[in-house]
Amino acid sequence: MKNIDRISTSILSRIKPGDAEKQKLRALAQSMISRINAIGKAEGLNIKGVLVGSSARGTWLAGEHDLDIFIMFPADATREYLEEKGLYVARKIAEGAQSYDERYAEHPYINAIFDGFEVDLVPAFGVQSAAEIKSAVDRTPFHNSYVLSRIKGLEDEVLLLKQFMRGIGVYGSELKTLGFSGYLVELLVINYGSFVEVLKAACQWKTGMTIDLEKHGSVVHKDPLIAVDPTDPARNVAAVLSIDNLSIFIDKACEFLEAPSEKFFSVAVYETLDDEGFKSTMGARGTSLIAVEFEAPDVVEDVLYPQLHKMEESIHEALERNDFRVYNSGVWADEKAVVLFELESSKLPQVKKHAGPQVWLGEHARAFKSKYKDSDTFSKVYIKNGKYMVEIPRKYNEAKKLLGSDVPKCSLGKHVALSIKKGYHILENDEILNIRDDEFRRALRRFFEK
Amino acid sequence: MKNIDRISTSILSRIKPGDAEKQKLRALAQSMISRINAIGKAEGLNIKGVLVGSSARGTWLAGEHDLDIFIMFPADATREYLEEKGLYVARKIAEGAQSYDERYAEHPYINAIFDGFEVDLVPAFGVQSAAEIKSAVDRTPFHNSYVLSRIKGLEDEVLLLKQFMRGIGVYGSELKTLGFSGYLVELLVINYGSFVEVLKAACQWKTGMTIDLEKHGSVVHKDPLIAVDPTDPARNVAAVLSIDNLSIFIDKACEFLEAPSEKFFSVAVYETLDDEGFKSTMGARGTSLIAVEFEAPDVVEDVLYPQLHKMEESIHEALERNDFRVYNSGVWADEKAVVLFELESSKLPQVKKHAGPQVWLGEHARAFKSKYKDSDTFSKVYIKNGKYMVEIPRKYNEAKKLLGSDVPKCSLGKHVALSIKKGYHILENDEILNIRDDEFRRALRRFFEK
Repeated sequence: MKNIDRISTSILSRIKPGDAEKQKLRALAQSMISRINAIGKAEGLNIKGVLVGSSARGTWLAGEHDLDIFIMFPADATREYLEEKGLYVARKIAEGAQSYDERYAEHPYINAIFDGFEVDLVPAFGVQSAAEIKSAVDRTPFHNSYVLSRIKGLEDEVLLLKQFMRGIGVYGSELKTLGFSGYLVELLVINYGSFVEVLKAACQWKTGMTIDLEKHGSVVHKDPLIAVDPTDPARNVAAVLSIDNLSIFIDKACEFLEAPSEKFFSVAVYETLDDEGFKSTMGARGTSLIAVEFEAPDVVEDVLYPQLHKMEESIHEALERNDFRVYNSGVWADEKAVVLFELESSKLPQVKKHAGPQVWLGEHARAFKSKYKDSDTFSKVYIKNGKYMVEIPRKYNEAKKLLGSDVPKCSLGKHVALSIKKGYHILENDEILNIRDDEFRRALRRFFEK
Repeated sequence: MKNIDRISTSILSRIKPGDAEKQKLRALAQSMISRINAIGKAEGLNIKGVLVGSSARGTWLAGEHDLDIFIMFPADATREYLEEKGLYVARKIAEGAQSYDERYAEHPYINAIFDGFEVDLVPAFGVQSAAEIKSAVDRTPFHNSYVLSRIKGLEDEVLLLKQFMRGIGVYGSELKTLGFSGYLVELLVINYGSFVEVLKAACQWKTGMTIDLEKHGSVVHKDPLIAVDPTDPARNVAAVLSIDNLSIFIDKACEFLEAPSEKFFSVAVYETLDDEGFKSTMGARGTSLIAVEFEAPDVVEDVLYPQLHKMEESIHEALERNDFRVYNSGVWADEKAVVLFELESSKLPQVKKHAGPQVWLGEHARAFKSKYKDSDTFSKVYIKNGKYMVEIPRKYNEAKKLLGSDVPKCSLGKHVALSIKKGYHILENDEILNIRDDEFRRALRRFFEK
């Protein structure tokens, strides 16, 4: 434990916001809230500015520089009213920013940069309880009060756990990451009492276990981890967490407790994989690599990544359906999007065994036999294990040709499908080296080394 | 039916023994039986010669020239007595033969050539009923009486069915063939009434159906076809019949009825596959062929073939266990024995994915991780679907090397194992052309064309 204490102190000195940062943030938040309230008064709007999120709770990591400011409307306001007036107020505030743009979640909000801080200005309904929310963001103020009332004195523990999760790559509930949200981290610390106690518990976790701080869970969830929302008995705060990120956390929690080290708190940075490294890696592995490359559609990551993974899955199925064996697959996106498949082999024999019905299924048997009677086959129709069999030419014996033809026919998300319609490339092995982007080359190294 | 009648007449004119052949056979059998009885009298042995088998029932195919002569001993004779005296009598008879040798089934008998006829002289116990037999051959006289009492007038139907089955390759209950025995053919004709009625019924058969002439079956059999022995309620006459030979018979019965033709009654003869044909076939298919070649052990086919198939199965399993995908396999034997495997590819990538335990199985998880921590792997130990995974070098990435090392470790029959111990060759693709035997080359063509 001495060792862990020493590590914690060292990590905290890096990740805890300094007094200057705290003061600046507090001042900025205060001025923004005053502005909102003033505009409300001037315009005769019944609104109120509220600071929520980690910046409200003292649980933000140094340099995160994120402010969530909610513009609270009465619960009985209409959606149209909230959207119109909310955006009006937010825009007025944002006029004083270095830059800002409108974004869309369930309803529009504004993301602005003030003095190096990224500020979200979000209109929301001030409902009576989290069970009565009219929009997903309405939950946030309840989370805020719940955590605020219990987190005092545990802020450093939250910071340590967040940084630990960031270091091992499981922090963040965006759909690109599928990890732990900040709120989930806070609930874990509240539940177990400290960073180390969370790790001790996690090292014993199994998939499917439930944490229910208020003992009020009202719904059966099938997620890898169930953390019942203290402000909403029907909601799983960990719904987005993937089985692999849960597993990584369990694994690393055990590893850390066995041999504590600062390295767990640092994000691994992969070197770029250069042409020579790529060639020698592929040569040693003896597999084939196939990439589908296309223009990444211009949508936020929470829209893009689920569609990339859907594409990855559809193509994976098409490959396996055609007898190509997939060893690994992955997605990457920046301006270009790339879906990668490592195959046992990108070539297959021309001949393919095709099984028909059992011999004693008269009708089907006849149909099968007559179908292959005069077609160009490698063998007669013969019998194996009581079933008709025939050896026929494969439709695709090269993965590249299969994908070249079938990618647009795969089940694809809306935006990716539109992008694929405009064009795509299938690259095989060394051709993939034409993608010269450094970030892609880092992803490529990670793809192989894990 | 007109058409079938015409075909039947034509086939019968080829396969029905002529008067001269019949007379010669009858005379030979009669003289042999007289000799047995005379020897018995002279030596004071209580024995009796009996003609059994198709030659006794008028259901042998022209040119078959097989005679089964049983030397019946009293039921209470001891096994030693029967073996000693039986062989003594048989040898005395065989002294007049062109040639003869002693063979062993459950007990010894003599196979002799008389005047172009192959005669088996078999000592047996004359028990009261087939349920009381002391040796497997004791059943034969009961089969003989049963068929004799019912076959009158149906002999031609039996001949047609036998020749039909021979033509399509399913006649013979030896362990090389795994087809229909002569006795089974006779029972089918007795049951359904004629050659055509058997085919009509067979075209409707499903696997697992039962024929029970005496409605006395007393045991549940799990064979593809169950034909309860009319002389033994516990025995399935079709026990040796394989699912594929049953299926072929069903299939060809339907085909014949739909389009009757004499071709069904002729055995397909395959041309030899020459070097050029082999190379172009392999080139077109795009697969790899691997052969294990060794000296065939000097045992009868009923001993050899089950051991060859056992070897085929063991090696098949070893190949699949090492991720080589088997498209087809087969065995062939003459002086050499060859077990053949057609593979999707005889080479695999050097890298292999190896799955470990689930992350939450603490003990196993730790053991797995520590095992691969400092070994030479392609990847770190990582997590996929909640399980540890690691990418390691394959033990064998060439099928030839795998078999070169592992064939002796496979589960092998006694005689084949001894032969393999003396040496064996693994041949790949064109190397297989070193086997220049014409019969092998015919088998090779059949292997591809089916």
